[in-house]
Amino acid sequence: MKLGLLGDGQLGWMLAEAAQRLGIEVRLWSAAGTGTAVRLCPDHVVAPLDYAPAEAAGGPSAFDAFCSGLDVVTYELEHLSLGLVEALAKRVPVHPAPAVLALAQDRWLEKAALAAAGLEVAPHAPCADRKTLEEALRSVGYRALLKTRRDGYDGKGQWRLDSPEDFERLLGAEDAGHFRWPASGCVLERRLRFDRELSLVLTRDASGAFAAHPWTENRHEHGILYTSRAPVALPKAAAEETEARLKDWLDSHRYVGTLALECFEVDGRLVANEIAPRVHNSGHWTLDGARTSQFENHIRAVCGLGLGSAEARGLAAMVNVVGVPANPELLARIPGARLYDYAKAPRARRKLAHINLCADADAALTSALAALEALVPPPEPAQ
Amino acid sequence: MKLGLLGDGQLGWMLAEAAQRLGIEVRLWSAAGTGTAVRLCPDHVVAPLDYAPAEAAGGPSAFDAFCSGLDVVTYELEHLSLGLVEALAKRVPVHPAPAVLALAQDRWLEKAALAAAGLEVAPHAPCADRKTLEEALRSVGYRALLKTRRDGYDGKGQWRLDSPEDFERLLGAEDAGHFRWPASGCVLERRLRFDRELSLVLTRDASGAFAAHPWTENRHEHGILYTSRAPVALPKAAAEETEARLKDWLDSHRYVGTLALECFEVDGRLVANEIAPRVHNSGHWTLDGARTSQFENHIRAVCGLGLGSAEARGLAAMVNVVGVPANPELLARIPGARLYDYAKAPRARRKLAHINLCADADAALTSALAALEALVPPPEPAQ
Repeated sequence: MKLGLLGDGQLGWMLAEAAQRLGIEVRLWSAAGTGTAVRLCPDHVVAPLDYAPAEAAGGPSAFDAFCSGLDVVTYELEHLSLGLVEALAKRVPVHPAPAVLALAQDRWLEKAALAAAGLEVAPHAPCADRKTLEEALRSVGYRALLKTRRDGYDGKGQWRLDSPEDFERLLGAEDAGHFRWPASGCVLERRLRFDRELSLVLTRDASGAFAAHPWTENRHEHGILYTSRAPVALPKAAAEETEARLKDWLDSHRYVGTLALECFEVDGRLVANEIAPRVHNSGHWTLDGARTSQFENHIRAVCGLGLGSAEARGLAAMVNVVGVPANPELLARIPGARLYDYAKAPRARRKLAHINLCADADAALTSALAALEALVPPPEPAQ
Repeated sequence: MKLGLLGDGQLGWMLAEAAQRLGIEVRLWSAAGTGTAVRLCPDHVVAPLDYAPAEAAGGPSAFDAFCSGLDVVTYELEHLSLGLVEALAKRVPVHPAPAVLALAQDRWLEKAALAAAGLEVAPHAPCADRKTLEEALRSVGYRALLKTRRDGYDGKGQWRLDSPEDFERLLGAEDAGHFRWPASGCVLERRLRFDRELSLVLTRDASGAFAAHPWTENRHEHGILYTSRAPVALPKAAAEETEARLKDWLDSHRYVGTLALECFEVDGRLVANEIAPRVHNSGHWTLDGARTSQFENHIRAVCGLGLGSAEARGLAAMVNVVGVPANPELLARIPGARLYDYAKAPRARRKLAHINLCADADAALTSALAALEALVPPPEPAQ
């Protein structure tokens, strides 16, 4: 069996590793031929991920070279050309199907889909200029995030507002040319006063079977995930209802693969924030803390191998290494810590590695996590 | 940091994976450029492993290309030229050091070293022709294994004897040209009536620290490992004494890296059979069943990163997939089974993959192992 994988970052690396362990050959579509996953995949084509076969000049050959002999295609990121994914889907089965990808690429469509699925979402409104922003602020309020509808991630493409003065500052920045409305427009979202950030990573296969990993508690710093921890105590009824509605929605799309849902916990309610139609940073702990990882289950779903158990093995935590390279010598100070280095050049606010921790008792995990946090600084604010 | 790794098989693959996860670059010395590890290591030289730089014609360039820029060198197999390893050690630190490798390459020296370390070994004697074999049989007895001193593995280079008739048959085979004495000579070993096969996989680093994985119970079929299981109940005093003597011996050699000791349990005693100065098939369960795997600890020892905890995480078992390719679809029938496919062409008695199982309770592991054994046939006899 031969799998085509769009994207070459750390998610692609961990997906390719899982696939190869299962005896599945992997061909990569790499934007620059230099990503983390490339070291696992001598078989790769190098071409932009916003490639559309009909338009590209020297392009169709990369497209054909990629498709040739593949049994199935998947992707590690949602920031890629929908046109490319749709063109591939005409040649080779692609999972997850382009329809959910299209929703996840647009924060406005995404919010509408989550609400239609019966999940609570924060008050929000679209806006694309000064006038529509002013209208949006009236319904959403001034404690808000202005987010680009497309292509934002890790806090990129977000502006934080707290007061009418911030709105005036934004207008001033626009006048001065420091702020430009993105062509795709924006969504203004109310910033909720939440108790915790939680995520659910689950996998559905073509038979309709689900494997849901335990809910994960996440802590972000300056818009980037810093730590995750699972399993955690939850508002049980709310979690079950959210999971059931998400599963119904995935059933309705005949979704195949892993998907992550990020939520805020607000007074015992779960408010859906966003989905990612792929494996997710908040599921990295599953490599060591679950009977089957999110990466392996995604591959098993996509390749029709049947899902593995997503049960936890004890307790687990993850710490992202951001901006500053991981020092493997620190492992010796935290027994059982497992480093995953992405072999990426250091850059401010760039995810360079993660470290997983496992323990049998809550207190042991808490103290190991505290020790690790003292060694691995949190993400820094954007300049 | 950049590590040079001699050999490109499945052990090299799992070592390279561990190294890359730790942020260590790997350059491979691959005999044919086609092994399992090559898929992880675009940076590799292709040259025979019996290469000796002084002798080789076009050779020195491969040697120089391999050495260039390396911080340390290790190996995944003992069947390689000692001359190569010694030549490398003049250019780059090599772990484990050539001295223990030399012992492990020769069954006669190995037995002598184990006995000198204070470990019990089975009665044995060297022989190199009809006359010396006859003498050896008088001291060892007819229930014996005749093993080539060098280059034997997985039952290759072994002849089983049970009676004086088998000795006569061997002499007849020699007369008919079906049996030839290996140039290195042989060792005749008494075949013990043992209760179990056990192994100890442990790692020593340059500071003298040890991380010993729990003892493993192994079952061979026709000379090839079929299943492993750990941790297991042991004759405690004998195990502790064996471990202590092995550690003293490794200290005396300032050994750096992972080493495996295979023993027979005979009436509560542990009789040392052989050592491997490397990671070992009977330690594959540590990938999922220990806090740190044998592969990671070997890399950490060799690269001076400090050892990780070798403690077990619950109970684990491993099944080797030999001769017939692994079918990844069988995973869905054994929850939590983890497949490691070596991407090797199927061939009789060739190790193609292994499958790890983990469980919290003995009964659960036993039943999962039985289910898996029903799906993965044992190694077949040699033709």
